[in-house]
Amino acid sequence: MSIVITAFERSPDGGKGLARDTRLRWALEEVGCPYEVRLLSFQAMKEPAHLALHPFGQIPTYEEGGLVLFESGAIVLHLAEQHAGLLPAEAKARARAISWMFAALNTVEPPILELANARLLERDAPWQQARLPLVAERVRVRLRQLSASLGDGEWLDADFSAGDLLMVSVLLRLRASGLLDEFPALAAYVARGEARPAYQRAFAAQLAVATGH
Amino acid sequence: MSIVITAFERSPDGGKGLARDTRLRWALEEVGCPYEVRLLSFQAMKEPAHLALHPFGQIPTYEEGGLVLFESGAIVLHLAEQHAGLLPAEAKARARAISWMFAALNTVEPPILELANARLLERDAPWQQARLPLVAERVRVRLRQLSASLGDGEWLDADFSAGDLLMVSVLLRLRASGLLDEFPALAAYVARGEARPAYQRAFAAQLAVATGH
Repeated sequence: MSIVITAFERSPDGGKGLARDTRLRWALEEVGCPYEVRLLSFQAMKEPAHLALHPFGQIPTYEEGGLVLFESGAIVLHLAEQHAGLLPAEAKARARAISWMFAALNTVEPPILELANARLLERDAPWQQARLPLVAERVRVRLRQLSASLGDGEWLDADFSAGDLLMVSVLLRLRASGLLDEFPALAAYVARGEARPAYQRAFAAQLAVATGH
Repeated sequence: MSIVITAFERSPDGGKGLARDTRLRWALEEVGCPYEVRLLSFQAMKEPAHLALHPFGQIPTYEEGGLVLFESGAIVLHLAEQHAGLLPAEAKARARAISWMFAALNTVEPPILELANARLLERDAPWQQARLPLVAERVRVRLRQLSASLGDGEWLDADFSAGDLLMVSVLLRLRASGLLDEFPALAAYVARGEARPAYQRAFAAQLAVATGH
């Protein structure tokens, strides 16, 4: 059954791997699933044909036979349920790994998105410089707790899982801010994620779209 | 196997049902699982005993035999996997319902959290009044798309699911802002969620903590 995902024709980050198709490419590479990519312009993302696949007009989407999914978290979970390699087989460890998936997306990513909005969307607002430290501190609270929980562990809960895949993907969005470097254990954790061959292949594939090679 | 969840001893909302234990109580009521509640002070939430259960020092947690979970989204998914009533049996419909769970928590809730931060945490900031309309507009973009997707449907995808449970819970946080009333189809959708007997029981149980009855 062939798999088709969607991605930006021109990613706003110019190929830094921060668009959400990278999470999905990484998961597909971890489980060894070949996939095709349909690239979309910003205009095409807001048209009825795409809105029928993704109610919020975003990327990525996932098509496999008659199944259409949206939301990168849901798609990573779907892949993890269908293939070995992204969730432990033991029931309790599996449920804990899923807790980490939701923690990445609903506890750690929201303040990171808020910081990105403060940096980019409110670039020209008169309050930007005064407000940025407040927002950065909300992110630091979460990073401090995450770093304490990770301790000197390699991954969040024993073996690498979909929880790590999403957490590393979310933390990567912080690199430009310098905040990640304030937490060496987290910076090393993110580097371990990036060093995985599956991540390397995913990163190269999204970069190839940006560079045209 | 007895189930124990944690909740605020004194919820910051004074019993309006907006704390995340309500989502969990609602799911437990939908699937007919009895549960016990351990109430926590703000101080106890930051102590090592609780941090061992919840790395981010929040509520709710979920304990069932030797299993300990955190993140309300993960716990609702765990309950939905173990019991009938929150996810469709058919594989494609089940995966779509899980897409809606992630959409509630990773696409719709982040701008709503940002609005709550702007209203509460930045109450005394000199930029608050000038900035609030910008943040409200980010929420409206999502509500407009969600309303278009819902159309005149009763629930997001055929029957009521864990996706609706989380989406209604997230939208309820908007009531005080008045934004929900700008989208009558969404206001009616939320009201349908609140009218479910399981929600009524969950709401009454969290209110009883606040009122002491």
